[in-house]
This record gives sequence, structure tokens and C-alpha cells, in this order.
Amino acid sequence: MIVAVDAAGGDHFPKNPVEGAISALQDDSSLQVLLVGPKASIENELQGKEYDPSRLHIQDAPQVIGMEESPSAAIKNKQQSSIVVGMGLHKAGKCQAFVSAGNTGALLAASAFILGRLEGVSRPTIASYYPTIKGFRILVDAGANLEIKPELARQFAIMGQVFCQHIMGIENPQVGLLNVGEEDEKGTEELKAIHKHIKELPGFIGNVEGRDVLSGKADVYLTDGLVGNILLKFGESIPETLTTLVKKAISEIEVKPEEIVATQKILHKALAPFNYELVGGIPFLGVNGVSIVGHGGSTPLAIKNMIKSAVKCIENDVNGKIVASLN
Amino acid sequence: MIVAVDAAGGDHFPKNPVEGAISALQDDSSLQVLLVGPKASIENELQGKEYDPSRLHIQDAPQVIGMEESPSAAIKNKQQSSIVVGMGLHKAGKCQAFVSAGNTGALLAASAFILGRLEGVSRPTIASYYPTIKGFRILVDAGANLEIKPELARQFAIMGQVFCQHIMGIENPQVGLLNVGEEDEKGTEELKAIHKHIKELPGFIGNVEGRDVLSGKADVYLTDGLVGNILLKFGESIPETLTTLVKKAISEIEVKPEEIVATQKILHKALAPFNYELVGGIPFLGVNGVSIVGHGGSTPLAIKNMIKSAVKCIENDVNGKIVASLN
Repeated sequence: MIVAVDAAGGDHFPKNPVEGAISALQDDSSLQVLLVGPKASIENELQGKEYDPSRLHIQDAPQVIGMEESPSAAIKNKQQSSIVVGMGLHKAGKCQAFVSAGNTGALLAASAFILGRLEGVSRPTIASYYPTIKGFRILVDAGANLEIKPELARQFAIMGQVFCQHIMGIENPQVGLLNVGEEDEKGTEELKAIHKHIKELPGFIGNVEGRDVLSGKADVYLTDGLVGNILLKFGESIPETLTTLVKKAISEIEVKPEEIVATQKILHKALAPFNYELVGGIPFLGVNGVSIVGHGGSTPLAIKNMIKSAVKCIENDVNGKIVASLN
Repeated sequence: MIVAVDAAGGDHFPKNPVEGAISALQDDSSLQVLLVGPKASIENELQGKEYDPSRLHIQDAPQVIGMEESPSAAIKNKQQSSIVVGMGLHKAGKCQAFVSAGNTGALLAASAFILGRLEGVSRPTIASYYPTIKGFRILVDAGANLEIKPELARQFAIMGQVFCQHIMGIENPQVGLLNVGEEDEKGTEELKAIHKHIKELPGFIGNVEGRDVLSGKADVYLTDGLVGNILLKFGESIPETLTTLVKKAISEIEVKPEEIVATQKILHKALAPFNYELVGGIPFLGVNGVSIVGHGGSTPLAIKNMIKSAVKCIENDVNGKIVASLN
């Protein structure tokens, strides 16, 4: 099994992708990694590091797509970028997955255009992990499709369920439609139409509200990419906000140094469910391949976990199960 | 100045509205309160309590609108409910404001139909307080208008700014449009059209993202009622979620009892900005009167703060300033 890793994506490349790849190779002796990016800088980063050279390969891709570049222009004009080259190798069967912490829009566009869609899928979607008190659950769509129609929503719900069950190990995943109230007739005309269209879907628990996200009432939170993207970024900001508020509180009330240490220890543990490093990346569901994207700030640990997610998607044949469930 | 208080609204009536009203009277010797609701139960609740009877009045309104009743049917069929009677007294000039912890939809409908709209306002809106690390800011619309057009968005932004400046004391309030990215051309067609329409509005800082809410980047977060309602309820769920996670963390790691006490003290202080009791209620902006609605679970302290908000709206002539700013 060969997983291609974008060595020119994210805020800290080639360092974090290279270190993440080496770490993944150490954990899994049957894995091979293909680092895609500017060859010289990858080789430079590998200097002095210990790894099994028979399982770590390099594919030169001299162009870099910036995090803020316009996705469609970037993939059109930068044919020698790590994203276009890596996705092309995946399409050609030279590797079984492509993982990247790079420009999400460019990755989505490249995944859709180069890999194509699975049979029965109208549009691919980004499913994001979302922290809840029950552990990570998923939010779909997380920003790829800002508006969704009923049939698209049905496909996203089913793809989310397959991912939940076969990658996250959640039996009989429950789908909740994010809305302003629980009653069937709540929400916009679009939400009412979606509700009606997916009413009979096994595992559909109806409308859920904003307060039902962190509580983990559903396993798959179904929403459009506008709400999903806003909620995703909001959720990511919670740990930092709390850390700031706790620091401020400590400076304002009388506490002993050892109590501060204990509080930080407790809070660190309490906020562990919000640690996206542990899940590492989010999959593009519905593309004819395995394409996983991580946060721009992905650490080596996050990259390693993205690679592991990719392996799991391949081993569990998530795409085959999506096609079977949709049809 | 007379503020009418719904004594038949919320999850704990008449107890909480009555206690909140008495507490508000104690704080402000120039205030008069009119309790509106089933007379016998209000009198029963007042038994044994200390208050100035010359400043506390009762208006009988025997019907009760439940928290889950359909708003339009309720206000049509229950003409003797506290909401319809109270709003009618406000319209007739018998009081200068109406505050309630009751059915939000019924209150919005009654406010719009009975009080009518201010000059230049196309539709009233619910502006909700939102906690940030800089203190409370506001989110508009919080659920009254699930979809918004550009001109409506402009009016909501301006009404939000007036409220921020004259009630919350924030100078030159900054308006941010909630979107999936900061660039002008991001988002749905609707969001692009709104951005274009309000581009020149003084204080408009452009698009903001989900991560910019808790950080307090804007003072007025402009969005449609779907996103606003989901975010509002999500935000309200944060303190409980954290409390649960902290309890779980404490049970899983070794900590001394005094460290637990210190942690709880620090966390209580840190989460104080999320305490909606202190703001008490959210105003319906754009109606020709002062109508404030609180959470169903409003405590006596929350009700008192709703009454204080109402007084501030009247004293600062928020409605006059809205009309002047819009035209």
C-alpha cells in the first residue's frame, strides 16, 4: 500500500509532512509513503533523519500552491504542483491515496476533476470531524457545497453514515438535520424539502438544533456548507477561547500556584476531545479515490493520523460501501 | 415609567417574573411594574413578599400561551393571554415596554402585529447577545428571519449598531458579515449581494468567519436567522458541555479535593462571560415599541436584567435613534 503525502502543503512544509510520514512508516511496517513536492527541499528535510529508504519515495513536483490561491486557477496553471502531480499519480494507480494539509479548495477541485466521482454521487462533499462529549462525530457538508438540494443532502447523509460506521466504528450511525427547531415543519423551504426527502432514511432522527451538536445527539450532523463551515471554524476556536478566559480568570482571582497547575492539567484533559490532531484530517467523500485534507497548521502527529485514516479508508473499502449504500 | 412584565411566560411562572419584578423595583425607585397574567396566581405569588404596592400593579390576563404553541394561532385565539393583553396595553400607551420569558415566536408575532414597525423598517429582527472574550456582543438575526435579502441585512446591521452603541455602550460598533471566508467574493450569491449592498456602511469590516465570533472581532455579527439561531443555541450549550467534560476529566485523573475546588472556582470565573442571566433578554429591533424576550429558563435575576434593559431602551430612545440612522 502506497500513500502519497503532499510535502508542499500546509503552513509548515516540508517539515511537518516529512516528519509525519516518517512517523507513520515507523508505526506500520507494511506501509509505503510517496512524498510529493520540490525534491531538493524534501531531500534536505530528510537529512539526518532515520527511516527505511525502501519504503519512502520522493516524487518531484516543483510548483507550490499557496494556501490563499484561487483553487481553479491554481490547479489549471500549476500542473507541476504537488497537488496536481500527486492526484494524477493516484488516478494512474501509482498510489492508493493522497493526503495533504494544503489549500482545501484546490484539493477539492483537484480531487473532483482528476479523480472523478463515484457512481451515484452528484457532488463530492467534505465531511469534518466534530468534537462532542461522546467523542468525535461528523459534520457534512463542511464547506464544499454552500447550498444543498434534497437529493444531495440524502447522498451526503449516506456517505457520512458509511464513514461513521466503517472508519469511526460507530454502529447504526444516526443522522440529524441541523435546523432551528425539532419539529418536522421547521426551517427554510429548503430544509423542509430535505427533511421530507430523507424522512425514511434508516438512522435519520429528524431535525436537531444548535444545542444538540456538542452533546453528540447525532453521529452525522447534516447541513449545508455555509452553516457547516461556520460551525467548524467556531468549534476549532473553542479551546483557544477557553484557554484565554481561564488565564484571565487566574489573573483576577487569588489562587495558589499548585492550583493553577492542577487546573491546567484538568482542562487539558477535558479539552482533549477537541484535539483535531488526533483525527488528523477530513475526507472528501464521493470522489473516486481516497483524498484526505488536513488543517493548514497540521502537526507531524496530525499528518501521521491523516495517513492512518487514508489506510483505513483503503483497507475498509469505504468507496465500495458508499456505492453499494447509495444504489 | 411603567414596564409590563409577562407573569405567565417562561418555564417558571409566575414565580420568576414576580420575583424579578420585585427585585427591579427595589433597585430603581422611579420604576413601576405592571404584572400581566392570571390575577389570582400572581396575587398568590406576591403573598408574604415585601414590595411597594404603589409601584406594582396587576393586569389580569387569564389565558396562557404555552412555550411550544404555534405563534400565529396562539395570538389569534388567545386574546386574553398575557402576551396579547400586555402588548395591547403597550400599544395603548399604558406602559412603555413589555418584557417576557415566554414563547419567542408568539412574542415576535404579537410585537410585529400589535406594535407595528418603525418607519423605514421592512421587518423586525431578533438581536441576540453573544458571549466573546471581549464581553457580550450581538448576533443579528437570531432566528426571526431565516433568509435575508440585502436591504434587510442593511437595516439589521444598522439597528444592531444603534443597540450596541446606545444600550451596550460600545463606541463605533463594527459590523462583520458571517461567511465562509474573509475575501469579498466569498459565500453564496445571497451573501455576495449583501456584502456589495452594505460595503459602504460605516463600521462594516467585511466578512468574518466562524473562528471570529468568540474572539470578538466584530461587535455586530450579521447573519441570517438560520445560522444565527444555530449559533445562538450552540453558544448556550458551551458552559454545560465544558462542565460535563471537566467532571469527566476529574474522575479520570488523580487530583486532590482542594485542587478540584480551585478548578471549579477558576472555571466559574472564566465562564462568567457566557452567563446570559447578566444580560437578561434580547430585544426585538424595529418594532414600534420596546419588546424584550428572555430565555424560557430565565431566573429572577435574568428577569430583573430584562426589565433594566427595557428601561435603558426607553431612556436612551433607541427607537428614535434607529429611525434617524435608517433614513
